[in-house]
Parts: sequence; structure tokens; C-alpha cells
Amino acid sequence: MDERSIGVFDSGVGGLTAVKRLRQLLPRENIVYLGDTGRVPYGSRSRETIIKYAREDAGFLLSRGVKAIMSACNTVSSAAIEAVRETAGAVPVFDVVDAPSREASAVTKNRRVGVLGTAATVRSGAYIRALSGFGADIEVLQTACPLFVPLAENGRTAPDDEAALIIARGYLADMLRFGADTVILGCTHYPLLRGVIAKTLGGAVALIDSGAAAAEATAARLAGLGLLSSRSEPGTAEYFVTDSPDGFAEPASRFLGTDIAGNITQVSLSEN
Amino acid sequence: MDERSIGVFDSGVGGLTAVKRLRQLLPRENIVYLGDTGRVPYGSRSRETIIKYAREDAGFLLSRGVKAIMSACNTVSSAAIEAVRETAGAVPVFDVVDAPSREASAVTKNRRVGVLGTAATVRSGAYIRALSGFGADIEVLQTACPLFVPLAENGRTAPDDEAALIIARGYLADMLRFGADTVILGCTHYPLLRGVIAKTLGGAVALIDSGAAAAEATAARLAGLGLLSSRSEPGTAEYFVTDSPDGFAEPASRFLGTDIAGNITQVSLSEN
Repeated sequence: MDERSIGVFDSGVGGLTAVKRLRQLLPRENIVYLGDTGRVPYGSRSRETIIKYAREDAGFLLSRGVKAIMSACNTVSSAAIEAVRETAGAVPVFDVVDAPSREASAVTKNRRVGVLGTAATVRSGAYIRALSGFGADIEVLQTACPLFVPLAENGRTAPDDEAALIIARGYLADMLRFGADTVILGCTHYPLLRGVIAKTLGGAVALIDSGAAAAEATAARLAGLGLLSSRSEPGTAEYFVTDSPDGFAEPASRFLGTDIAGNITQVSLSEN
Repeated sequence: MDERSIGVFDSGVGGLTAVKRLRQLLPRENIVYLGDTGRVPYGSRSRETIIKYAREDAGFLLSRGVKAIMSACNTVSSAAIEAVRETAGAVPVFDVVDAPSREASAVTKNRRVGVLGTAATVRSGAYIRALSGFGADIEVLQTACPLFVPLAENGRTAPDDEAALIIARGYLADMLRFGADTVILGCTHYPLLRGVIAKTLGGAVALIDSGAAAAEATAARLAGLGLLSSRSEPGTAEYFVTDSPDGFAEPASRFLGTDIAGNITQVSLSEN
């Protein structure tokens, strides 16, 4: 039993999909969330910069005394997870690549799995490595979808948004030819575009939400490690951001389905 | 006469449009450019964060001993120019709002001027203040175009790019109704989308490139202040970025029309 908080970080607001699922599964746990909103997005930056930012994110959570760290950012999970583990030392670190890869390998029937992610996620090849670990016979096609994050952040997510559909059709043309029956939404923003992506790929393709899949695996692993809290009352959640809380409250409340304005603190991350 | 360098900064690569024009006008000047590529974009961040980043950008240029600072970023020029002036002390600071506003006020015949910019630029109202200073009779309509920067950064700039045209039509519908005969491209990325914007607004509307207009004004002001160099050989240009130079070299060379790979240095900006 361990009464300390679970730490979760992301480059911005997207990681809250994982927080929402964690809180459903583990309602008595305390959560500390960090969104690096002053430096979002990560997916278009170099590996070295992603590593630097990820170390600072993990360092902040460690300074809050967390018992585990979940990297809810696919870019960090793909390109910089070893740096997070190094920073975290004995504190266990969970990513958002392993669990959705396992789920995809269990779901796919034709053994063709697609991965949609940021440029850095695709470049890292992390999903290809993870998927091959769950089935040597699985063929993988990765596609970088760099405009999906700005589309999601600007609310262009309706399944009939013409611009979003045209952009999705461009990104997903190769995926349609490849014929994946299972596609991992390898960025925590992409579930917001689920309708657009499903309409473009067709309803028969299974879409795996990486944040939700990873939250489920993290909850199970924490239980297995004996790291869950013994408290009987509901757990708390604290939210930290690196830009003004003002711009975060509205989308965060939308992601979580509950109003968190007034519970968001701006922090400055120290350079190493 | 002053042999020191002229410092220019932007959140990313867009400010190089101003550098290109400066080097045409003042070929014997040395230029130091800083692109804060590790934290781009600025336009979606809060005013306080923009001020913090702008102070650090200016501080870096001052540490290189520049004789003048040009903020080639419309967001900083609109929302944080006083902080830059405060940081710069006696070193003159030039922005990219004043000169294009002057040019627009001279060009408009129907006294209706449009301004396209980032969310932070529009929120600041800086263009409205500048334009009213050049003509109390000028009516201004501002429009935030948050997807223009990601479109430009992802090469979706062709005048027949369907997604870019749909997004532009959405942003510019009010502008068409307003009937501006002159529109300021109030973000250094937007000239890349000139074809898309011109097609949407119609060929009769004059489009003002804020970076080029500001470079011309800056060159004239430096001459007026007696701050130009007396050297007879061509000036040098040094480029600094806060993310890896790898991702900067290609777009920068495209912006400048000359290959600068090998002349780009990564730096870390100190927190204040």
C-alpha cells in the first residue's frame, strides 16, 4: 500500500484522456498532472529537445513525491522513455506505446496494424518494435499526421468538417491501400478526431485509443506492484501547467468531463 | 558609424523573410538571427509567457553585443514589445507592426483595412492602435487565423491546396463582407500562403507583407540614427536556434533563397 500520488505528464492537454480513464479505474488514487503547455507541441521537435523536456517534466513530478510516473505523451513514450526512466530511478515509469500495441496485436485478424502519430513518434520506430514483440507476423504501416494536433486544438474535429476530412484522406490513402484492420491512434489528441478518422478508414477498422489502453495497463501494473492506496475516500487531482491556467481550464474540463478551473497551478520547469 | 551586428529574432523560421529583405537593403551589415524553435509557436500562448520568452530572446541578442534589435515576430511585436524595449535599455528596438500599418494606411483607398494574425496578435489590439495613429478614419477588421501557421509549416501553401482553401474561406468570409481593399499579413508565416489568401480574397485586395515592410523601415531608421556600418566588404550572418539545427536548415534556406546549413548553432536561453 502506498499513499503517494500517481504522476502523469503530457506536452499539453491530450494526456488528460489517460487521467480520465485512470480516475475511473482507481478512484481512490491521488493524481498529479503536468501539462507542458508553455512548450507544446513536442511531436515536431528534435529527439534531443524532446529528451530534455521529458527529463524536466519527470523531474517536476518527482519533486512532488510521486510513486509512479505515466508518460501520457506518445512522442515522449516513443522517443525519450529511456531518459524518463533514467531520471525516475527506482520510481516505475509507464508509457503509452506498449499497452496499445499489445491490444492491437490481440485485436487484429489480418495481422496488419496501422499506427498514426507525430513526426517524432513515427521517426522513433517505437511502435514497430513494440508490435513486433507481440507478434513477429504483424505487418505495420506508420503514418505521421502532423496537422491532426492543430486541427484538434482548433476544434476542427466534427466528422463532417470538410478541411479535416481532406487532410485525413491525404494522410490515410496509403493506410487504406495497406488494408490494416486495426489502427492505433498513437497521439493523445487523435481520439478527438476519431469520427473523422473512422469516416475516412471505414467503420470496419478497429481504432485503438493509446491513452485509454495505457491507463488500463498502468492501473493493473500498479496493483501488481502493491502500489495502490489504502484510503477509502475519493482521491484528489492536482493540475500543473507551464503556460497560463486560463487557456487550459476550458479544454481540460472538456477532456475530463468535469470542471477543474480553480485547481490549476502554473509552474516553471527548471533547466538541468 | 557602428560596426556591431543587427539582432533579429522570431519564434521560428518566419522572421527570415525580414532578414532576407534587410540583407538586400543593407548588404554590408552583420546580422545575428535567433529563432526560438524549441518553443515555437508563440501565437497561441498567454501574454505572460510571450513576454517571458521575448525577454529571453532579446537577452540572448544583447549578449551577442548587437546595436539594434528587430522583433520579427508579430506576436511579440503586438503583445510584448514594451518588455523587449525594457530589456534592451538604450539599444533601439524595431517591431513588425508599425511599418506595415503605415504602409496599409497609405495604400487603402476605401479606408477599410484587414489584419490577419495569430490569436495573441489579434487579442492585443496592437494593429488597431497603430492603424488609428495613421488615420483616425480607417476602419479595421482583425481575424485570427490559427491554422495558417501549421498549414505553412507543413507545406500546405499551394493556391490549389483544397484543405488550405477551405480553411482560408472560413477565416476570410467576414473579411470579404467587410470589404477591406488592403489586408496586412500580420504574421511572418502568412506570406507563404499569399496565393491561397489572394485567391480567397480576390486579386483586387492589396496584401501587405509585414516582415518586408518592417525591414524597409528598420533600414531607414538605422541610417537615420547613424547606426550603419562603414565596412566595405559584405556583412556576415549568423543563425541561432533553440532546437536542433537539423530541422531548421532546410526551411531556412528556402526562406532565404541561400543555403545556410553549417552556419546554424543551437543555444539554450537562460531563464530570468
